[in-house]
Amino acid sequence: MQSYKNKYAVILGGSSGLGLATAQKLAQEGMHLIIVHRSRRSVMATFEENVTAMQQNGANVLTFNTDALHPQKREQVITELLEKIGKHQVKAIIHSVARGNLKPMYSQEGAVLSNEDFKLTLDAMAVNYYDWVSAFAKAELCTPNARAIAFTSEGSSRAWSQYGAVAAAKAALESISRGIALEFAPVGITSNCILAGVTDTESLRLIPGSELMKEKSLERNPYGRLTLPEDVGNAVYLLMRDEAAWINGAVIPVDGGEHIR
Amino acid sequence: MQSYKNKYAVILGGSSGLGLATAQKLAQEGMHLIIVHRSRRSVMATFEENVTAMQQNGANVLTFNTDALHPQKREQVITELLEKIGKHQVKAIIHSVARGNLKPMYSQEGAVLSNEDFKLTLDAMAVNYYDWVSAFAKAELCTPNARAIAFTSEGSSRAWSQYGAVAAAKAALESISRGIALEFAPVGITSNCILAGVTDTESLRLIPGSELMKEKSLERNPYGRLTLPEDVGNAVYLLMRDEAAWINGAVIPVDGGEHIR
Amino acid sequence: MQSYKNKYAVILGGSSGLGLATAQKLAQEGMHLIIVHRSRRSVMATFEENVTAMQQNGANVLTFNTDALHPQKREQVITELLEKIGKHQVKAIIHSVARGNLKPMYSQEGAVLSNEDFKLTLDAMAVNYYDWVSAFAKAELCTPNARAIAFTSEGSSRAWSQYGAVAAAKAALESISRGIALEFAPVGITSNCILAGVTDTESLRLIPGSELMKEKSLERNPYGRLTLPEDVGNAVYLLMRDEAAWINGAVIPVDGGEHIR
Amino acid sequence: MQSYKNKYAVILGGSSGLGLATAQKLAQEGMHLIIVHRSRRSVMATFEENVTAMQQNGANVLTFNTDALHPQKREQVITELLEKIGKHQVKAIIHSVARGNLKPMYSQEGAVLSNEDFKLTLDAMAVNYYDWVSAFAKAELCTPNARAIAFTSEGSSRAWSQYGAVAAAKAALESISRGIALEFAPVGITSNCILAGVTDTESLRLIPGSELMKEKSLERNPYGRLTLPEDVGNAVYLLMRDEAAWINGAVIPVDGGEHIR
Repeated sequence: MQSYKNKYAVILGGSSGLGLATAQKLAQEGMHLIIVHRSRRSVMATFEENVTAMQQNGANVLTFNTDALHPQKREQVITELLEKIGKHQVKAIIHSVARGNLKPMYSQEGAVLSNEDFKLTLDAMAVNYYDWVSAFAKAELCTPNARAIAFTSEGSSRAWSQYGAVAAAKAALESISRGIALEFAPVGITSNCILAGVTDTESLRLIPGSELMKEKSLERNPYGRLTLPEDVGNAVYLLMRDEAAWINGAVIPVDGGEHIR
Repeated sequence: MQSYKNKYAVILGGSSGLGLATAQKLAQEGMHLIIVHRSRRSVMATFEENVTAMQQNGANVLTFNTDALHPQKREQVITELLEKIGKHQVKAIIHSVARGNLKPMYSQEGAVLSNEDFKLTLDAMAVNYYDWVSAFAKAELCTPNARAIAFTSEGSSRAWSQYGAVAAAKAALESISRGIALEFAPVGITSNCILAGVTDTESLRLIPGSELMKEKSLERNPYGRLTLPEDVGNAVYLLMRDEAAWINGAVIPVDGGEHIR
Repeated sequence: MQSYKNKYAVILGGSSGLGLATAQKLAQEGMHLIIVHRSRRSVMATFEENVTAMQQNGANVLTFNTDALHPQKREQVITELLEKIGKHQVKAIIHSVARGNLKPMYSQEGAVLSNEDFKLTLDAMAVNYYDWVSAFAKAELCTPNARAIAFTSEGSSRAWSQYGAVAAAKAALESISRGIALEFAPVGITSNCILAGVTDTESLRLIPGSELMKEKSLERNPYGRLTLPEDVGNAVYLLMRDEAAWINGAVIPVDGGEHIR
Repeated sequence: MQSYKNKYAVILGGSSGLGLATAQKLAQEGMHLIIVHRSRRSVMATFEENVTAMQQNGANVLTFNTDALHPQKREQVITELLEKIGKHQVKAIIHSVARGNLKPMYSQEGAVLSNEDFKLTLDAMAVNYYDWVSAFAKAELCTPNARAIAFTSEGSSRAWSQYGAVAAAKAALESISRGIALEFAPVGITSNCILAGVTDTESLRLIPGSELMKEKSLERNPYGRLTLPEDVGNAVYLLMRDEAAWINGAVIPVDGGEHIR
């Protein structure tokens, strides 16, 4: 039997977008879930419906409506997990936190990215991945041969206006993933990034000029459609399987081939 | 049900090494096989044992002991396949042909790579991949949403002494894979390369200095072991699954993280 | 004094486009030139005017109207050079041969890239670079600390329709450049590629869809203009200088930043 | 006349290593200097000798012994520069600040990289580059067609033990350089990174295991020697020249070809 069955996947940022689609796929394939999210009241009803649906699939679902960036809150989650599920039950740590500041680097008049904007964005979208993996490893929550997975984008190697801080964070995230791939090998945690194509999520819609990004993606994509959250959930699932044990330190595009044009 | 079940995978160079391990894994997971190989008499007995084992697993196995680089012989294979299995039965075309010339680029005395050496190596290890995919597409042998997969190595982006022609071929192969990913999208064939870590196969042992390569890989590899043919077969299997449909044009390292150091 | 002064640069494909602009810049900076070109009668008058202008700048200019891809003709050039300028006078070998076949990889009706198309394109735009560097090194024509330079494009890492053979050749060319950088170090020849942005040359105009390529480049380019042949000539000149001796095996974009978007 | 003559280069971290060698080369070629450094008393005598030597070459040298990471101190430097040299006199901003924390990501006993370690390292070695370029542009200190240059290393795309925070910072730095290349184009500042090979500087000697790094570099380097600070200074000088105006957003290796193996 595949070793991911009946094990837990922690999804940081699991209430919508790529994180939610991942949760749904993994539940469907027999995993239990720990969802760390920060949801406004207005979306809680929808989120809870989603959780119920996963539970009806047979999944245990633990949810934490808390700030994934806050060190003490992370410690609370870990303490609670040790009580509720015990050690060595977490097969996967999936980082889907999208909290970055979008501003130009230069403008004659308006606001530009500040040092603080970079700090917050780098912390939320890059260093935070390490913080969670490190804390889980230290608490011995992970199974042997566990998976750490983070979501990156083409922004890691390109420059787009307003996107400077997020781009730097994505580049740092991929580097941190390589570091985890190397340094957590002794405890058996692999780390990989999934580079999703342009996906029509709420996070995307917050980016100024996202309509144009979508248009260009449709034009570039060999299959003429945008990436769906399910495409990404599917790829995460592949990495759960035992056959993926030797994939480590990689950045895997999941975009129908968009990145090659 | 996963759409690869009971469909065919063609394996070009499937009698040993990565190709054979791939065949074995795919047979085990419910695929049928078409193995194109060029085996000397001395290894035929072992090869036939392997085929028998796959058949006992329930796989249909068609074998062609012929030269994969020869256009007429390719046409013969295609004609025969159309007769025996008919159209739209091939889910995967897997290119594992390793036939390259190893010589230095410069030497004060000995032989160096000739124009001819480059031509043969580029043809066998790069263009040949396109030739097969193109011919299969034209003959309508492929299923909708088929997979083309080729094996590359770190040599595509590095320089090693004696390896100049193979390195150029691997770089060209990855480019051709991107071309296929784009241009065969209308007929639904994705294309990806698997970048295997140093694997202790017969092909490797033919490389001068392979002992040193193995030593260095053991030193670099986060998991302290070489890549096994089974690791690569496992990764090919993941790409067969329906969940991999949106992975296209990628170069996926399968090496335990060796490439990151 | 800079060591390139009064030394020769061989320019393969030096009668127009990037090659010609390079020749002009190097002549202006005090180098002598060997121009290997294949010019139709209709353009010879213009070419000869250009040569005269370079000579008036004080440059010795040797021209060979011959096929750079033909091994015997290469040998003739070398024999003649040994007679006329003698050993150790060539500071730079610059490869600007653009002879590739443009066809789609897949088409339901029209012609597609053949094995032969790939062979010709890989030979002209990739292996030929090695052939010349190798022959010059063997004939001891080069100065100590000489430069080999080849022109590549973003096509080496992207996929564009019709461009499959050229793309593979550019990828192979970059690999061959790395090989030269490593293996010719004992004789002191560095090798680098210049990755030019979209440049409005005759070669570009032959590409189907080049108008669209230009439009997109203008849109992407941070400086809102296309790359000029002079931009590339300037970058080649920088690599001639003694300060560039430690740059080796690199792919240097010269495009105003076009590649980052 | 080349436009860099008699213009200023700001060197952040210019009292030793790559920064100092750069300062010396630029002074020699006719530039004036602004050196921002943080030097302990013990090394001040040597530093002052170096400054005197540059001045004897004819260079104006302004020095600021201050913390390049401190926003108020940056503002003081800018105010003083506006008074002393006025607007539009700065041709180059060169970032050579190496202040990163070296610790493992995982250890059963000892200290590991903290969130704070990442923050400090990302700030000093990545975001700080943007802070200075941004502040100089806003104060209109730069000439038209100015150059921003930062020093990176192979660590940006690799994983080495203890090097996780610096690696992330180098990856972020390269991304920020691309952002500057794009977004400061309207004010005519290009941005490029120089990726130096392993150089035997004081900063290197502080890295645990640096002896082994040097050994491996000597083994890998096609020219069998380490990179010298002068090699890097030379490359920076090339980027000062008018011929480099179209090089933008690039990462240029200066390592004798070390990165290709």
